Amino acid sequence: MSSIPKIVILGAGYGGILTALRLQKELNYNEADVTLVNKHDYHYITTHLHMPAAGTDHPDNARVNISKLIDEFKIDFVKSTVVQIRPQDRKVILEDGTLSYDYLVIGLGGEPETFGIPGMTEHAFFIRSINSVRLIREHIEYQFARFKREPHRTDYLTFVVGGAGFSGIEFVGELADRVPELCKQFDVDPSLVKIYNIEAAPTALPGFDPELVEYAMQVLQKKGVTFRIGTPVKECRADGVIVGDGEEIKAATVVWTGGIRGNRLLEEAGFETMRGRVKVDEYLRVPGHENIYVLGDNSIVFNPDGGRPYPPTAQIAMQQGVNCAHNLVAAIRNQAPKPFVFHNKGTVASLGKGEGIGVAFGRKFKGRTGAWLKKLIDLRYLFIIGGIPLVLRKGKFL
Amino acid sequence: MSSIPKIVILGAGYGGILTALRLQKELNYNEADVTLVNKHDYHYITTHLHMPAAGTDHPDNARVNISKLIDEFKIDFVKSTVVQIRPQDRKVILEDGTLSYDYLVIGLGGEPETFGIPGMTEHAFFIRSINSVRLIREHIEYQFARFKREPHRTDYLTFVVGGAGFSGIEFVGELADRVPELCKQFDVDPSLVKIYNIEAAPTALPGFDPELVEYAMQVLQKKGVTFRIGTPVKECRADGVIVGDGEEIKAATVVWTGGIRGNRLLEEAGFETMRGRVKVDEYLRVPGHENIYVLGDNSIVFNPDGGRPYPPTAQIAMQQGVNCAHNLVAAIRNQAPKPFVFHNKGTVASLGKGEGIGVAFGRKFKGRTGAWLKKLIDLRYLFIIGGIPLVLRKGKFL
Repeated sequence: MSSIPKIVILGAGYGGILTALRLQKELNYNEADVTLVNKHDYHYITTHLHMPAAGTDHPDNARVNISKLIDEFKIDFVKSTVVQIRPQDRKVILEDGTLSYDYLVIGLGGEPETFGIPGMTEHAFFIRSINSVRLIREHIEYQFARFKREPHRTDYLTFVVGGAGFSGIEFVGELADRVPELCKQFDVDPSLVKIYNIEAAPTALPGFDPELVEYAMQVLQKKGVTFRIGTPVKECRADGVIVGDGEEIKAATVVWTGGIRGNRLLEEAGFETMRGRVKVDEYLRVPGHENIYVLGDNSIVFNPDGGRPYPPTAQIAMQQGVNCAHNLVAAIRNQAPKPFVFHNKGTVASLGKGEGIGVAFGRKFKGRTGAWLKKLIDLRYLFIIGGIPLVLRKGKFL
Repeated sequence: MSSIPKIVILGAGYGGILTALRLQKELNYNEADVTLVNKHDYHYITTHLHMPAAGTDHPDNARVNISKLIDEFKIDFVKSTVVQIRPQDRKVILEDGTLSYDYLVIGLGGEPETFGIPGMTEHAFFIRSINSVRLIREHIEYQFARFKREPHRTDYLTFVVGGAGFSGIEFVGELADRVPELCKQFDVDPSLVKIYNIEAAPTALPGFDPELVEYAMQVLQKKGVTFRIGTPVKECRADGVIVGDGEEIKAATVVWTGGIRGNRLLEEAGFETMRGRVKVDEYLRVPGHENIYVLGDNSIVFNPDGGRPYPPTAQIAMQQGVNCAHNLVAAIRNQAPKPFVFHNKGTVASLGKGEGIGVAFGRKFKGRTGAWLKKLIDLRYLFIIGGIPLVLRKGKFL
């Protein structure tokens, strides 16, 4: 075995990429071997995926080649899919090989949580990757084209979005903006198009400022969105959904944004999990495995005040990545680790073109200012991961 | 009844639009009431549809609003679908009304001829209208997006084009040009994409100059097209085709360009037809109906030399429209009609970007010159129907 410790990072999402970037900066020459493993050769900006999914932006503007972000003289990159994590052997099994590690960072991202709703996995679309949003965009356009051949099939023009959390709200905002363009492109009467946003909870954006929730719903209703709040989706079928007390909504497109769970690989590794997430210790490590860190959607971090877990966001994953890199360097240097403390810098949601809502700096924002704040946060992220060159290359599209 | 004769033109294709334009020019004030009926409020350029079908051009560049072409002070336009032609009552039944006529011009265009091949009508796509080509384009893109989710389904990336006549050859040329773009857009390995062009006749482009056919096949093979010549399609299924001696080609996309027949409305009107086409008299009239003219794909005109019918092309339909308008004016003025004589000005086919073949002015053309000649013919057509303004508006896209 090499005397240089081996760090393997699984996943180049917000958590993994921030860990890699900080390690690259903080580690001295030959202090550790770092390998980043990711399914694709690009990192994608999950908070931006609602736009290419609706077709209001190009998918390429939501991704960055990993080779543009990391310094391949300092960090090895392996494009592969993780098949199994074996903590007892300190090995990770890939689709096409095996990696051993001394330290492991797991940031593989979440999977859609369908809460066992029948048919959801089979028939719904999920906003979760570049491939999946390209599929949604193409599927939507295809329905408009199909409708022109079968004009009695108004279900082709009905779009059901399950879940009115941040992903659901941001997606319906973009979709409502896209519909008039598609109607023009395919000569379709806009009054035939229906967008339903269905949420089981008693409010949209549960937990968010009620005044801003009210504002968001008004903006989206004006754009043509029909809300069904306090209405659970009971079943998803090939031709629509059954909601609430048995009402059927015929729709050729169902997009489920109702929840994210952790990753089955964590369960299969033998870790104790809650919905596929590991409740990490204060240093972001798996209890009982001091050399394994878990980040982002794969982890649960509890709010020390109320005892409730923080919602999984890009913001927390990024902060975890920075903390994780720091603790890895400390471990290698036999220094004391630093507990992870989440600093909530606010939350912003876009509502389509020129509209947004947010809470930040102890203030509420809405309308153009909200939209502008969302853009600013996206630009800030590009700056963090890729500096000015990346802001110039991708920023103009945001 | 009004003392002014009523002329009704069914269909604003090449034949109908040319008839309308010439009538508009030649008729004096109040000499006749002219009504043009068309399913859409636009005329489309059928010879250009292979491009938007493959996605190499925007569908809007293959259509022109009828209101931009005809003078609505001189010609009434009715947007409707013809349901029935009743020669005995001198009436045309529309989806939403009825029109009476003294003179009728029928240029409703053809329907795909599938020669009874099982499953073709149900499962294949046809290049025949703006709506149908938008559907093909969206369907093709959708297959690339679907493949990324189900990478074992290489049938999503297999495209079968039935028929290697002009439509088939022009379409595979565009499709072969589009594939590299789509592969880039969806991160697909181009070597997985297959384009088959299948033709039952012993040669591609039957009846065309053999040297140019050879050249065309070489160009298209180099672009990645696999030809199966002398191979009939025996059956079309939801998941591909059965060809020749039972071989199955799995493909999620089958486009049938193998033939055009006339229109069932002509059969239902009680006219004697061959595959839905009326063998018109020398003045383009239905035998036994001196007040009904039939044009384009709805008509058969025999070559006086060899006794074989002319192939249905845009060129012949346009010449028929001019002759028909002349004979209508003559009939109204009690003058002698003029027999229709077809002047073959040549035939040109595009083979995708910068490549074409053609025979015109007693010469053969190929390569860039062939492509340029095709463009010239398209521009000439725009000039004929819409003058310089239309050439400027649409011509730059050709």
